[in-house]
Amino acid sequence: MSKTKGRVTLPSETGFLEETKEMMERWGADAIRDSDGTKLSEDLKSLDAKIYTTYFVSRGHNDFSRNHMEETQSLYLMSRHTLAVDTTLRISFMDGYFRQQVMPDYDHDPKIYWEVMDRTLGTVVPVENWEVWTESDEVVLKDIAPYHEYTVSFLVKAIWDPTQMYNHITNNWGDKEHDIPFDVRKKHSNEYIHSYMSQWMKENPRTDVVRFTTFFYHFTLVFNDLGKEKFVDWFGYSASVSVDALEAFAKEKGYRLRPEHIVDKGYYNTAFRVPTKEYLDFIDFQSAYVAKQAKKLVDEVHRHGKEAMMFLGDNWIGTEPYGKYFPEIGLDAVVGSVGGGATLRMISEIPGVKYTEGRFLPYFFPDTFREGNDPTIEAKENWRMARRAIMRKPVDRIGYGGYLSLAYQFPSFVDYIEKVTDEFREIYDNIKGKKPYTGLKVAVLNSWGTLRSWQTHMVAHALWYKQIYSYLGILEALSGDSVEVSFLSFEDVKTNGVPQDVDVLLNAGDAGTAFSGGEEWLDEKLVTTIRRWVYEGGGFIGVGEPSAVHHGGRYFQLADILGVDKELGFSLSTDKYFHTAKEKHFITEGIESPLDFGEGMKNIYALGKDTEILSYHDGQVELSAHDFGKGRGIYIAGLPFNFENARLLHRCMYYAAHKEEELHKLFAENIYVEVHGYPEIGRYALVNNTDSEQKTAVYDEKGRKTMTVLAPQEIRWMEMEKNEE
Amino acid sequence: MSKTKGRVTLPSETGFLEETKEMMERWGADAIRDSDGTKLSEDLKSLDAKIYTTYFVSRGHNDFSRNHMEETQSLYLMSRHTLAVDTTLRISFMDGYFRQQVMPDYDHDPKIYWEVMDRTLGTVVPVENWEVWTESDEVVLKDIAPYHEYTVSFLVKAIWDPTQMYNHITNNWGDKEHDIPFDVRKKHSNEYIHSYMSQWMKENPRTDVVRFTTFFYHFTLVFNDLGKEKFVDWFGYSASVSVDALEAFAKEKGYRLRPEHIVDKGYYNTAFRVPTKEYLDFIDFQSAYVAKQAKKLVDEVHRHGKEAMMFLGDNWIGTEPYGKYFPEIGLDAVVGSVGGGATLRMISEIPGVKYTEGRFLPYFFPDTFREGNDPTIEAKENWRMARRAIMRKPVDRIGYGGYLSLAYQFPSFVDYIEKVTDEFREIYDNIKGKKPYTGLKVAVLNSWGTLRSWQTHMVAHALWYKQIYSYLGILEALSGDSVEVSFLSFEDVKTNGVPQDVDVLLNAGDAGTAFSGGEEWLDEKLVTTIRRWVYEGGGFIGVGEPSAVHHGGRYFQLADILGVDKELGFSLSTDKYFHTAKEKHFITEGIESPLDFGEGMKNIYALGKDTEILSYHDGQVELSAHDFGKGRGIYIAGLPFNFENARLLHRCMYYAAHKEEELHKLFAENIYVEVHGYPEIGRYALVNNTDSEQKTAVYDEKGRKTMTVLAPQEIRWMEMEKNEE
Repeated sequence: MSKTKGRVTLPSETGFLEETKEMMERWGADAIRDSDGTKLSEDLKSLDAKIYTTYFVSRGHNDFSRNHMEETQSLYLMSRHTLAVDTTLRISFMDGYFRQQVMPDYDHDPKIYWEVMDRTLGTVVPVENWEVWTESDEVVLKDIAPYHEYTVSFLVKAIWDPTQMYNHITNNWGDKEHDIPFDVRKKHSNEYIHSYMSQWMKENPRTDVVRFTTFFYHFTLVFNDLGKEKFVDWFGYSASVSVDALEAFAKEKGYRLRPEHIVDKGYYNTAFRVPTKEYLDFIDFQSAYVAKQAKKLVDEVHRHGKEAMMFLGDNWIGTEPYGKYFPEIGLDAVVGSVGGGATLRMISEIPGVKYTEGRFLPYFFPDTFREGNDPTIEAKENWRMARRAIMRKPVDRIGYGGYLSLAYQFPSFVDYIEKVTDEFREIYDNIKGKKPYTGLKVAVLNSWGTLRSWQTHMVAHALWYKQIYSYLGILEALSGDSVEVSFLSFEDVKTNGVPQDVDVLLNAGDAGTAFSGGEEWLDEKLVTTIRRWVYEGGGFIGVGEPSAVHHGGRYFQLADILGVDKELGFSLSTDKYFHTAKEKHFITEGIESPLDFGEGMKNIYALGKDTEILSYHDGQVELSAHDFGKGRGIYIAGLPFNFENARLLHRCMYYAAHKEEELHKLFAENIYVEVHGYPEIGRYALVNNTDSEQKTAVYDEKGRKTMTVLAPQEIRWMEMEKNEE
Repeated sequence: MSKTKGRVTLPSETGFLEETKEMMERWGADAIRDSDGTKLSEDLKSLDAKIYTTYFVSRGHNDFSRNHMEETQSLYLMSRHTLAVDTTLRISFMDGYFRQQVMPDYDHDPKIYWEVMDRTLGTVVPVENWEVWTESDEVVLKDIAPYHEYTVSFLVKAIWDPTQMYNHITNNWGDKEHDIPFDVRKKHSNEYIHSYMSQWMKENPRTDVVRFTTFFYHFTLVFNDLGKEKFVDWFGYSASVSVDALEAFAKEKGYRLRPEHIVDKGYYNTAFRVPTKEYLDFIDFQSAYVAKQAKKLVDEVHRHGKEAMMFLGDNWIGTEPYGKYFPEIGLDAVVGSVGGGATLRMISEIPGVKYTEGRFLPYFFPDTFREGNDPTIEAKENWRMARRAIMRKPVDRIGYGGYLSLAYQFPSFVDYIEKVTDEFREIYDNIKGKKPYTGLKVAVLNSWGTLRSWQTHMVAHALWYKQIYSYLGILEALSGDSVEVSFLSFEDVKTNGVPQDVDVLLNAGDAGTAFSGGEEWLDEKLVTTIRRWVYEGGGFIGVGEPSAVHHGGRYFQLADILGVDKELGFSLSTDKYFHTAKEKHFITEGIESPLDFGEGMKNIYALGKDTEILSYHDGQVELSAHDFGKGRGIYIAGLPFNFENARLLHRCMYYAAHKEEELHKLFAENIYVEVHGYPEIGRYALVNNTDSEQKTAVYDEKGRKTMTVLAPQEIRWMEMEKNEE
C-alpha cells in the first residue's frame, strides 16, 4: 500500500516539535489541534498543517462574569420529595445539591417563577400557602395536607461550569478558579460573547479552525452535596432555562411554561420520557435562538477567513445536529467522540456541514498510556466497531486527543494507528460520496424520530447502563449493516404514514419510554396506520416491550402483528399452549445458540399456533415471527451488540420484509464477515470484523458463491461482475 | 403413644368390607365416604362410622335437563380480537370454543344481551352496525373503522358440566352421557333441585353426612375447540351469569350490568384484576342468592337429621366461605383439599360452620399408587407442610380420597398414615380451641381483604405458575408462623384505618394486580393513612411491586416508606449510589445466603443512604429495610416458599414491628425447627419440619435458652415455666 496523506488530526503540545513532525509524517496528519490541558506553541503552529484551536464561548472569562453575576446561567431544579407529617412543612430545597455549583436565584420573585407541588395529589400548592426563607434556603408551607409529599421547583444560578467542575474535581485542581457560565440571552453577556470573538480572531491569526466547545448551554449535569455527579442527561435542556428565556417563550409561543414543564416530576424530561408538547416547544424555541446566536459567531469566524467547527458535546444544547435550525448555523464541520459504530454514524450523517470528524479512542491520557498496558487493544476494538459504520457512511476525517508525548512512548500503538490512518484514507478514497448497496430500508420508530437520529436509548454519552445495553445493540448492529437506516417519529407516521420506501419498522424499548412509545400507542391513527401498512406487506420488528401500553385486553398494542404479548397477571387464567421453538428457520440459520438477549424480557407468550417461536427459555418467548396479512411481525426480547445478534437482526429484517431471496447478494455466510457493495464504482469490500482469520462463503452481487479466507481485521476490495477467488 | 380414635375419614368401596374394618382400626377412622368413581355398599354403610355421601345439586339429572334445555346454565364469553381490514367484518365468535361444552344462546335477543366492542377505541359498536347470523354463528359488522380490532361478547348455554367434562375427557369415558348443568334461578330447575333433595333424603337413610359437591355454579372452566382447557379461574363467576340473573341484578342494584362488566376485555375479572364496583356488586348479588338457595337445601338435610357438608371447589361459586352471606347457609361442615399450609388454613379458619375437614394428599389413585412408586414421599411432604398450619389453627378432621383398595397394597404407606392420624389427634386434643402464642399480628393488604383470606395469588386451585410462586410462598410461610395473620382490603383501610392491633402490613404482588393494588394507590386517603400509621410506629413489608403505580415521580407510591423504588427508565439520569449490602443485620441473622427470591424483581434501587440494603445482586436491591418515622419499611423482591424464606419473613416482621427484643421467646435458632406455644395449657411444641435430625438452641416463653436435638419430623411437647432438657 503506497503512503497516503490527509484527513487526520493530530493532538500536539508545546515542546514536542520534532516528534510532531515525525508523527504527522507517519500518520499522514494534515491538521494539529490543542487539547484539554495542552497548548500549541508558535513553532507547532507554523507547521504545514491546519491549526485547530479550542474556543469556549460562555465560560473561562471570570473577569467578565464576576462583574455580571446577575447574568449567570440558571437552571430549574426540584427539591427532594418531602413528607408532611403535619399541616406545616419546611423544605430545605437545596438539600442534596452542590452549593459550589448552584445557588438559589432570589433575584426573581419565587412566587412567580417557583412552584410547590403536592406530589400525592399531583396539584400545585397555592402561593398563599408558602413562603421562602432566604436566610435558611427553605420553603415553608402552611395549611397543607399531612402525609402528602411535597416538592419545590426552584430557580438556581449556575456558578460553576459543569465540564470544568468535573475536570477540576477529578484532577484535584485545588484552588484553580471556578469558571462561571454566563448567559447569551442576557444583555452584557451577549455583547461580551460577540465582541470577544472578534477580538480573539485578531489575536489568533495562526488558527485555521475555531473548534467551538461548544456554544451556550451545557447538557444537564448536576452534582450532589458531596461534589459527585447527581444527575446527568446528555440531552438535557434544564441548564438553558432562565427568566429571560421563559418570558421570551411566553411571547413567542403564546403560553407560559410552568416550572413543572421543565422539572417534570424530577425526571427533567430525559430522552426516555415521551416528550410533552410543552417540552418539544421549548426545544424548538431554544434551538431557534441558539442557532441564531451561533450563526453570528460562525459568521465572524468566516469573516476572518477561518473555519468553524463544533464539538458535539459539553455546551451543545440547542444545536441538535438533526434539528431543523442546525443547518442555519452555517458551520463548516462537526467533530465528535466515536464510541463505536452508532456514534460514528451519529456524526457522519450530520447534515448541513462541509465535513465531519471523528475523535477516536483511546485518548492519549495516562490512565490508558501507562506502563504495562497495551493501548492498541482498545484502539483495535474502537476501530473494528467504527470501521463497520465507516463502510456505510464515512466521517470525512479522523483524529485523536490528549498528550501526543504519551502516545509516542508506545511504538506498537503508533504502528497500529499508522495502519488505521492508511486504511481510513483507502476506504474514504474508495467510497466517499458513493451510495452503498442496501438490501432494504429500515426505519427506527419512536417519539423522537429524525431529531435524535442514532441517539436512541442514551443517558450520558456512550456510557453503559443495565437498562439500555439490550437496546443500544440494535443501533450498533445497524450502524454497520448493509441496509438503509432512517428514523421516524410517531408524529411522522400519523401525519404522513409510513414512507413508501421503508421495508421494515423497528420499535424497541421498555414500556412507557419514548423509545417504545407508551401512551402514544393509544392513538388509533398510529395503530391503524401501522396495522394497515404491515397487513399490506410491511415488516415490523419489536424489541423488548414494543407498542406497550395496557389497553383493550392487550399489553402490546400491536400484539396482533407480533403474535406475542406480555403476561401482566391478568390473563394467567388463559392457558398458554405454545412453547416449542422451531429448530430450523430462515432467521436463525447459521447462528449459534444460545442466543444472547441481554436483559431479556419476562413473561412474553405466543398468542397462537401461527406464531413461529424461534427461541423459548424459562417459560418465555425470546424470539418469534408471525405472519400478518401480507406482512410480518418479529419479536426479539433484547439485542445487546455482538456479531451473532448483528446477523440475527440482519436476517430478521430480510424475513420481515419478505426479502429472503435477496439475502444472498453481497453476503458472507460467516457472521464475522460483512460485505459492503458500491455499485457506482463496481466494487465491494469483504470485511473481517475479528482479530482472527475467517473462512467464509461469499456471495457476489449476482449471488454467485465462492469460498475465501480473510486475514485478521482484513478489508479486501473485490471487483463486481467478475468471479474472483 | 396409646391408640386413639376419631377425626379421620376413610374412603371405601363396595366389596372391601374386611379391609375397611382393619383400616378403620389402624387409622382410627370414624367416618367412611364414597368417592369419585366409588360407591359404598350396604354392608359398609352398616359399620360403626358416620357415612358421607356425595351429592350433586345441579347436574347428573339429564332426564330432567333434556326436557328443560331452556334452563341450562349460561356464560358470557368473548370472541377473539378480530381485525377489520375493511369497513365490514365477520366475526366467527365461537372460534376457539368447545361446541360440546357451550352453544350460542339465541333464545334471548343478542341486540339486548350481547355487545360488540371496538377494542382499539374501547367503545361499544352501536347495535345498528351489526347482525347475528345464527346459521353460521357469526356476527357481521358494517360501517366500522378499518384496522381496528373488534370482539363480540355473547351469551352461551352450558351443555356440559366442566368437572364431568374434565373427568370424561381425561379418563376416556367414551359415549357416557354428558351431564347438562341446570340453573337454580330458573323455575323448573329450582323446583326440581329442592324436590329432588327431599326425595333423595328419603332414599338414603344410612347417609349421615350429605357432602354437597357443591351447589349451583361451577368456577369458570372453559375448554377450547380441541377439547383442552382454554380458561380456568377458580374464583370465576362467569358461569353464574344468565339473563335471569342480569334482570334480577338490575332490579336489586338499580343499574344494568353490561356484558363488558363480565367479560372484562377477556380477563373475565380474574382475582388478579383490581375488582370493579360492578363486579363486586355482582359477587355480592350472586352470593346472597346462592346462600338463600343453599340454605333451603341445608335446612332440608337438617330436617332429616343429617349433617350438611360442603366441598370447597367445583360448583362453589357464590359460597365464598369468608363472604358475608356464607354463615347464613347454616352448613355443619366444609371439606377441602389440602395442598399445603395455606390451603389448610383457608379451610381451618372458615367461620360459621361446626367443623372443618382437610382432604390430604395423595389421592389413592393409580397415578401415585403404582408399582415402583412410594406414595409415602408425597404423604410426608403434604403432612409436613400442613402440620405447620395445623399447629396454628387445626382443621377438625382429616381424610383421604380415592380407592382404599389401592392404598391397602402399600403397607409402608398404611403404617405412615397410621402415625399421621395418631399425631393429628394428639395435636388436636392438645390445642383445639386454644389460642396459640403470637409475637405479633400481620395483615395482608390487597383489593380483596378478608373475602379471599388465604387465597391470594391463586389461578387454578393450588397449581404452580411462574408468575405466582414468588408470592404464594408468603402465605405458605405465614400459615405455620407463630404470628397472627389477618387480611385487609384497601377499602377497609380507607374506611376504618389500620386496625389497632396490627403490627405489620404486608403488600405483595406484581404491579397493577389486585394483590399489589394498581390504581388503588392513587387514592390519597389510602396512601396517607398508611404513611401516618407507619410513621407513628407501624411496619410495612412490600414484596415484588408493592404500591406500584406510576404517579408523582414515584413508581412505588410508598417508596418513601420502603426506601426503594423501581427504575422504569425515566430516572436513569439520576445517579444511583447505593449498592452495598450490609453483612450483618437482624433480619438475615442465621440465614444462609444466597437467598432465593424466586422470579425476583428487576431494577429496584435504594433511594438514599438511609436504606439498609441486605441483598444486592446483578444491579438490583433484593432485600432492604428503611426507617420511616417511628416505623419501618421492608422490601423483598420475591418470596417463594422454603424454610430459609419462612424464617426470613418471620425476622422481617419482627424487625418491621420493632419487636426484635421479642424474637427469642418460644423460638428455635435452627430454621428447620419451629416452636408453637399455647399459654392456656402451659405447653409449647418443638416441631422438626424436616426428615432429618435437627440440633437447635431453643428459647422458652421466658427467653431461656437450651440446646436440644429433634428426631426427623418429630413434634415434642414441652411444659412452660420449667427449664426442660
